[in-house]
Amino acid sequence: MDQFIMQPIGFVSSPYQDQTAIPKGLGAKHETEGKLNILPALEAGLTDIEGFSHLYVLWAFDRTEAGFNLMAHPPSDDRPHGLFTTRSPRRPNPIGLTVVELLGREGSSLRVRGIDMLDGTPILDIKPYLSNIPAEKLRRGWLTEAEARKI
Amino acid sequence: MDQFIMQPIGFVSSPYQDQTAIPKGLGAKHETEGKLNILPALEAGLTDIEGFSHLYVLWAFDRTEAGFNLMAHPPSDDRPHGLFTTRSPRRPNPIGLTVVELLGREGSSLRVRGIDMLDGTPILDIKPYLSNIPAEKLRRGWLTEAEARKI
Repeated sequence: MDQFIMQPIGFVSSPYQDQTAIPKGLGAKHETEGKLNILPALEAGLTDIEGFSHLYVLWAFDRTEAGFNLMAHPPSDDRPHGLFTTRSPRRPNPIGLTVVELLGREGSSLRVRGIDMLDGTPILDIKPYLSNIPAEKLRRGWLTEAEARKI
Repeated sequence: MDQFIMQPIGFVSSPYQDQTAIPKGLGAKHETEGKLNILPALEAGLTDIEGFSHLYVLWAFDRTEAGFNLMAHPPSDDRPHGLFTTRSPRRPNPIGLTVVELLGREGSSLRVRGIDMLDGTPILDIKPYLSNIPAEKLRRGWLTEAEARKI
């Protein structure tokens, strides 16, 4: 079986010290500011990044109980849903994905808004956010239904 | 140093047998259809996925030369740019990220539009695409400048 070994390119500096502090569920706003501290040896890879308003951050769930259930219980609904339709941290591969707004850079440290990771979370990759799906084409499945039930 | 070992949750079925066949650079359209063949043992994790119009696919660059340069030469520009502002396949961690439109599901196989991976590419994760960055807030850095120079 193929295996891929990933190593951190840096670590998140976040005000969240434990999972219970992270806003979750319907209407949770992710406007928390924090830093992406990239390893100094990789700083040149950030050249020109100031021109981008938003970034994808790929990171590792490093403090999540091992294993996963194929049906997940997301905090935004009282019904279970297929794991791959949720952002549950317990997944076959422990990769998290967050879109952040880039506020500034100091050397190899990026100041960002939209942090939803724990302090010290290992960062695996940063990619530019380049395009949107037009809102009128976007369907959000069970999440839309869960929102409607809560109104 | 922390390490994270990733294994495929499935494989891409794509018309692209080699890198040169994949549209790249400015104006490249990614409307190619293909399949995400998830391992049958994980099929329950796809429950309810039909309600979502778009998905994030995280996948592994499994046929890319090892190593990376911190300055990359993207096909959309004749100037080099910081690796983390590009989608270069040669990165510290070989993770690719593609947004696809979900066209249909047959068991553990998802028919999608927007494939830009090679045939047989290992899939690491699937996540729901839930929200957009408003277009008026989006800045695309050197890519916007490169487009302006080509007009």
